[in-house]
Amino acid sequence: MTETNPPAAATLLRQFHAVRQHSLALAAPLSAEDQGIQSMPDASPVKWHLAHATWFFETVLLMRQMDGYAPFDPAYQYLFNSYYEALGPRHPRPQRGLISRPSAQDVQAYRRYVDAAVERLLALAGPDELAAVAPVLALGLHHEQQHQELMLTDILHAFSCNPLLPAYRPAAAGPAPAAQAAPLRWLRQPGGTVDIGHRDNGFCFDNELPRHSVLLEPYEIADRLVTCGEYAAFIADGGYRRPGLWLSDGWAAIQAQALRAPIYWLDAADPRAGSNDGNDGGWHVFGLHGLAPLDAAAPVVNLSFFEAAAYAEWAGARLPTEAEWEAASDAEGIRQLTGHVWQWTRSSYDPYPGFRPLPGVAAEYNGKFMVGQLVLRGGSFATPAGHARPSYRNFFPPAARWQFSGVRLARDL
Amino acid sequence: MTETNPPAAATLLRQFHAVRQHSLALAAPLSAEDQGIQSMPDASPVKWHLAHATWFFETVLLMRQMDGYAPFDPAYQYLFNSYYEALGPRHPRPQRGLISRPSAQDVQAYRRYVDAAVERLLALAGPDELAAVAPVLALGLHHEQQHQELMLTDILHAFSCNPLLPAYRPAAAGPAPAAQAAPLRWLRQPGGTVDIGHRDNGFCFDNELPRHSVLLEPYEIADRLVTCGEYAAFIADGGYRRPGLWLSDGWAAIQAQALRAPIYWLDAADPRAGSNDGNDGGWHVFGLHGLAPLDAAAPVVNLSFFEAAAYAEWAGARLPTEAEWEAASDAEGIRQLTGHVWQWTRSSYDPYPGFRPLPGVAAEYNGKFMVGQLVLRGGSFATPAGHARPSYRNFFPPAARWQFSGVRLARDL
Amino acid sequence: MTETNPPAAATLLRQFHAVRQHSLALAAPLSAEDQGIQSMPDASPVKWHLAHATWFFETVLLMRQMDGYAPFDPAYQYLFNSYYEALGPRHPRPQRGLISRPSAQDVQAYRRYVDAAVERLLALAGPDELAAVAPVLALGLHHEQQHQELMLTDILHAFSCNPLLPAYRPAAAGPAPAAQAAPLRWLRQPGGTVDIGHRDNGFCFDNELPRHSVLLEPYEIADRLVTCGEYAAFIADGGYRRPGLWLSDGWAAIQAQALRAPIYWLDAADPRAGSNDGNDGGWHVFGLHGLAPLDAAAPVVNLSFFEAAAYAEWAGARLPTEAEWEAASDAEGIRQLTGHVWQWTRSSYDPYPGFRPLPGVAAEYNGKFMVGQLVLRGGSFATPAGHARPSYRNFFPPAARWQFSGVRLARDL
Amino acid sequence: MTETNPPAAATLLRQFHAVRQHSLALAAPLSAEDQGIQSMPDASPVKWHLAHATWFFETVLLMRQMDGYAPFDPAYQYLFNSYYEALGPRHPRPQRGLISRPSAQDVQAYRRYVDAAVERLLALAGPDELAAVAPVLALGLHHEQQHQELMLTDILHAFSCNPLLPAYRPAAAGPAPAAQAAPLRWLRQPGGTVDIGHRDNGFCFDNELPRHSVLLEPYEIADRLVTCGEYAAFIADGGYRRPGLWLSDGWAAIQAQALRAPIYWLDAADPRAGSNDGNDGGWHVFGLHGLAPLDAAAPVVNLSFFEAAAYAEWAGARLPTEAEWEAASDAEGIRQLTGHVWQWTRSSYDPYPGFRPLPGVAAEYNGKFMVGQLVLRGGSFATPAGHARPSYRNFFPPAARWQFSGVRLARDL
Repeated sequence: MTETNPPAAATLLRQFHAVRQHSLALAAPLSAEDQGIQSMPDASPVKWHLAHATWFFETVLLMRQMDGYAPFDPAYQYLFNSYYEALGPRHPRPQRGLISRPSAQDVQAYRRYVDAAVERLLALAGPDELAAVAPVLALGLHHEQQHQELMLTDILHAFSCNPLLPAYRPAAAGPAPAAQAAPLRWLRQPGGTVDIGHRDNGFCFDNELPRHSVLLEPYEIADRLVTCGEYAAFIADGGYRRPGLWLSDGWAAIQAQALRAPIYWLDAADPRAGSNDGNDGGWHVFGLHGLAPLDAAAPVVNLSFFEAAAYAEWAGARLPTEAEWEAASDAEGIRQLTGHVWQWTRSSYDPYPGFRPLPGVAAEYNGKFMVGQLVLRGGSFATPAGHARPSYRNFFPPAARWQFSGVRLARDL
Repeated sequence: MTETNPPAAATLLRQFHAVRQHSLALAAPLSAEDQGIQSMPDASPVKWHLAHATWFFETVLLMRQMDGYAPFDPAYQYLFNSYYEALGPRHPRPQRGLISRPSAQDVQAYRRYVDAAVERLLALAGPDELAAVAPVLALGLHHEQQHQELMLTDILHAFSCNPLLPAYRPAAAGPAPAAQAAPLRWLRQPGGTVDIGHRDNGFCFDNELPRHSVLLEPYEIADRLVTCGEYAAFIADGGYRRPGLWLSDGWAAIQAQALRAPIYWLDAADPRAGSNDGNDGGWHVFGLHGLAPLDAAAPVVNLSFFEAAAYAEWAGARLPTEAEWEAASDAEGIRQLTGHVWQWTRSSYDPYPGFRPLPGVAAEYNGKFMVGQLVLRGGSFATPAGHARPSYRNFFPPAARWQFSGVRLARDL
Repeated sequence: MTETNPPAAATLLRQFHAVRQHSLALAAPLSAEDQGIQSMPDASPVKWHLAHATWFFETVLLMRQMDGYAPFDPAYQYLFNSYYEALGPRHPRPQRGLISRPSAQDVQAYRRYVDAAVERLLALAGPDELAAVAPVLALGLHHEQQHQELMLTDILHAFSCNPLLPAYRPAAAGPAPAAQAAPLRWLRQPGGTVDIGHRDNGFCFDNELPRHSVLLEPYEIADRLVTCGEYAAFIADGGYRRPGLWLSDGWAAIQAQALRAPIYWLDAADPRAGSNDGNDGGWHVFGLHGLAPLDAAAPVVNLSFFEAAAYAEWAGARLPTEAEWEAASDAEGIRQLTGHVWQWTRSSYDPYPGFRPLPGVAAEYNGKFMVGQLVLRGGSFATPAGHARPSYRNFFPPAARWQFSGVRLARDL
Repeated sequence: MTETNPPAAATLLRQFHAVRQHSLALAAPLSAEDQGIQSMPDASPVKWHLAHATWFFETVLLMRQMDGYAPFDPAYQYLFNSYYEALGPRHPRPQRGLISRPSAQDVQAYRRYVDAAVERLLALAGPDELAAVAPVLALGLHHEQQHQELMLTDILHAFSCNPLLPAYRPAAAGPAPAAQAAPLRWLRQPGGTVDIGHRDNGFCFDNELPRHSVLLEPYEIADRLVTCGEYAAFIADGGYRRPGLWLSDGWAAIQAQALRAPIYWLDAADPRAGSNDGNDGGWHVFGLHGLAPLDAAAPVVNLSFFEAAAYAEWAGARLPTEAEWEAASDAEGIRQLTGHVWQWTRSSYDPYPGFRPLPGVAAEYNGKFMVGQLVLRGGSFATPAGHARPSYRNFFPPAARWQFSGVRLARDL
């Protein structure tokens, strides 16, 4: 959270442009119609993400730190507030998909308007102002990066509800996937007193602080992620039919919804899956590149915590705690820490000892969600470069299936 | 339903073009994003209406009566089937708003493709084929006209969920509304044996047949519709707080949803309503022209049957039965029969004695909905010219509030 | 509704005692625990029925027509009001099963207290008072009789939720059921102008009036009810899997609840059904006598309107309208009019022309339910003797399955 | 969980009788009707608790460790299984209140039957058998004690749904409550490495193990519980109207249900509360002794975790973690550790490092609930003597309001 020696205005501006531009690039493959749809209350339209990230800069930065700033449209304060009670009433979350107006074009204009204001603010700021602006700007950029990942998780869910199963973008040509993943290796970790939490003076969220010591028993952690092939074996072995493998709420959820596989897996009998390619169980998997035969060597993704924990139980292992995960993040031989899928941990999302929320309106950023959720660590292929850290605490409810979330195993010694 | 001496191909083609073109004209004020939104399961996106009406021609006419017709896209059979069980599975109704693809442009192309095929079919048809085609074509056109009205009711509901309250189209400049409606006059009707149901050989739906006799007591019917000013007086007199005025299910509905006025009425305290113009109660009403102060002389619209019946009770009157309505439709002095708002009757939507559904797939058109709904008669400003008839039976569930439905009173002698 | 020459006090008292005693006799096989349970919001505990029927006499008769009457317990006004808005707030219907206090014994005491007061009222009444009391007393007795039938329908539903499937009372020893019903005969009815509605000066409910003329086409009506064996044939022929047989709402209901048979039918695979007796399809049926193999010759019972209408469609027939039913009620050869099962008609429960609700608090008795329900005619084995009439209009929503409701067929000529 | 040197059969028998007898004593003030009611899916009828605790002995002890034991009634295996998937299907939890049969008397007979069998088992057991039986018997007794507390929480909730607000038992005559609690004192705790978890060889549940070390920062903990008077001040200060005090899910819950006070608090405007006694805010509180004016000095009870955490935030403090609570349990000056109300902690109910569930069917006892719940520590006035320990981990979902749960504050140094 602390940034000593704030970077020069030019550096800030370069970072700002890069992040803002990346959001547009992510939206580029999508039509205005695509950008408007919302497939469930937990997800948001891409257009809404584009506007909300902009609203954050307008509300938290420009309206508070730029003299004479005139909001683009007062109605946007209501439309694009996500959950900040201190910032007034807001459009109901489940109805974000009904906002055909402002249009996608209007939202682009909103982005340009706010971008120009931020540029002016940075251009005119003296060193003291820059020191005040820099941390808010950094928060806004990391905030937008979080929504960049959500733009992809949410459009994937929306497209999965379309019987045409559209691809967000075609797969790049490239070598065929590996037939099989390398064997999983267990990395022995000594435990003892370890320090976790954000360690240096770069950016972090409030929930990563204070850095503090915890005591760990010795343990082992897997060098790599669980693969689709391994998960298919779990299914084939009756994984979704054996209550003893599941937490009680997880079993209730899969019974109530008659779940038999991860959310985007289509079995051989599904008419959308086309011909059976003879892979493990005949599964096809829907993803941002569209529908493809299951890639047995790829990390399994889009699991709920319940599914992750049941798999671990079946595998005779368990999920790591978040402290174990963080302590092992520089272990020799560990792979796939980030850039593939988020990794569910066996840690509830509780405050660190001595936790203090950010001051001001950003106090609602993290702390008020610290109940009923589980921590994920690492980062996914959709996490923007430079966004995550080993101390980064992502969190979702245990039933959430639409995130890019998978499994790394751990076990007691 | 029967058309003796089918019109020449040229006549059919002219009718076809006129109706098809009108749908496009209705969609013209709407962006592709507007056309995609669905605000509740009972409503559909405009784009879906445009495609579904086309699907009807494709499925019921072209695929059955045109040799060698190749469907535009087989997936559309699934996407744009509304409720025809005999025509296979279909996309879930509550998820019609998620279909960002096919795009609005794709749907336009679909329309052109089907239009061209219908043109070819008519151009090449001999007299016998024409005789076979004509009734199906007529059904398809009346079907599309029904969806033309729904395009407007549904987009109005969708826009009402947008805090910006967009106008579908600006109000035409014109004379100010009348300050007050003419006094209501009661028209005395003799009752006795009257014939109701479709009478000639022009088009009608199956539910208007057979024409048959009913016995009516003498009654009186209002010469005009109930106005917004009259309805505002009902509200001001505690209409929504007096259970004795309401049917039991109606009272339960207004309690459960805390209703205090018609669906699109905003009271003076509503921040969206702007300044209070000092009209009856300070009401503003949202409609296709956007938000406007209540027009006291205009027919009240967007009422549920429950609201209509409660108003009638309060007014010391009742709703007419559908037979009374139809029998009075040529009474001297009667006004506003059609072209303003649909008129709820006190008749449940039951089959006429001897009712037979249409043959073939169109059997599902009307008959299977004959339970739990109430009949509306007349026609609204949104009903396409030439679509309705005095024998026309519109129907909706009693709680439906988003249709262009209002009240004509009747009373016993 | 009108009773000229009111019977002497002694006659009224005898009727009162008989009806009141019958309620106790119906409750006698049930423990206090049995009498307290409520298995769904539409049903009520037996204890509640016993108290509510008493509350009706207390509130509508004693508190209004007996000087100095002191209510048994003021709280009972709240606890045992069913739906009379004019009589103040009331205990929520879905929570009637939580009222362990007052106990079943308290309710017995309540009954005795009110009985004694009614006795005093009758003993002391002069002719004018008697004339005023008599119609209210009659209404109260017919009201209690309605609840007598509901006591049985409701306890049967409650017991059906108990995996032990308790019998309300053992079946009387008797001859084995007939192997097969007599062949159904069609009785030809001339139609024309017929009068329906209550005809004499005996008691009737307000919804049976005014007697009025209707015009009927000629039709045929079945001489007897549809049997369980016939209904089993409908199931065996795919009745629950063919959407074309069902009204739209009916098909939606059986899909949503995965229905495959009437509510109390257990198929051969049900572990509660015990051994398969080789009857039609191996069905067992749960009833007041407990579980028994399907009796093929017995009238089918506990059908919804949707099931009744689908059966009729399958049988190439239809349900009679209520006017047809009433007109045929004195047809030669007609059987099983009452005393077996209520018979769904194809008539929505609409007001008769000129309908006027009862004056006073009883205005809420019938009229406010006149939407969304279907009329049943006849009477069941559970209808108290002397309660029903050919003009009697019973009514329930189309999805209601727990009433003693079955089918008599009709067809056009 | 481990019991070295199992006590003699006579000791076991004495313990067994004492616990079993206590359940009957708790049920004694309740009629059979009272014992049958279930006011929400989370609660169970008293009769069900009495039977389920007995089923546990039958299933886990007698059917596994007593040769030739014949179950009392095979149907009870289905009826009284709570959540043990490994033990077969079970009666749906929300329908436990419909089981009028078996009767309360039948359940008493079931208890006697099982008691007699346990007595025989103990009488005939040799030392080896006794060693095998003792831990299962101990588990069964602690299990029954848990249900003893639930009998009281559940009947209180059920009675709160009865407009008569019955008292479970009258308050004992005694001195008037203290007008005010002693001032809260903060006890400074050093933190550092502390050991938590069960420490000796007496009974404990699997979730209290393994005992392990944790690192704590220095902190302060309140010497006593938060009182009703303090909580009333929180309400008076807008506690239920200020979103900034609440966790996000908590705020959503109080908005959705329009909560303004603890579940059993009635404000001065509530007609059930009778006259206003002029206490803090005019509150009345419903409890096992019926309705009484708020006792300002008494510990506040029946709070959800959300309410507890919002109060702590308002008070400028926080809830202790479970490790802090346990470490402070022998702190000098600490009061009201147990015997008053359970104390919500700021710890999610996660497994201890190295946690292993009990073997066999009891594996489902605790571990499968370790997600989405919060830990409570201490024990309430309703916790049977000898049941709880400082290492005892009670747990409930954060929205649960019907437990005897309150608040002890902590704060950072």
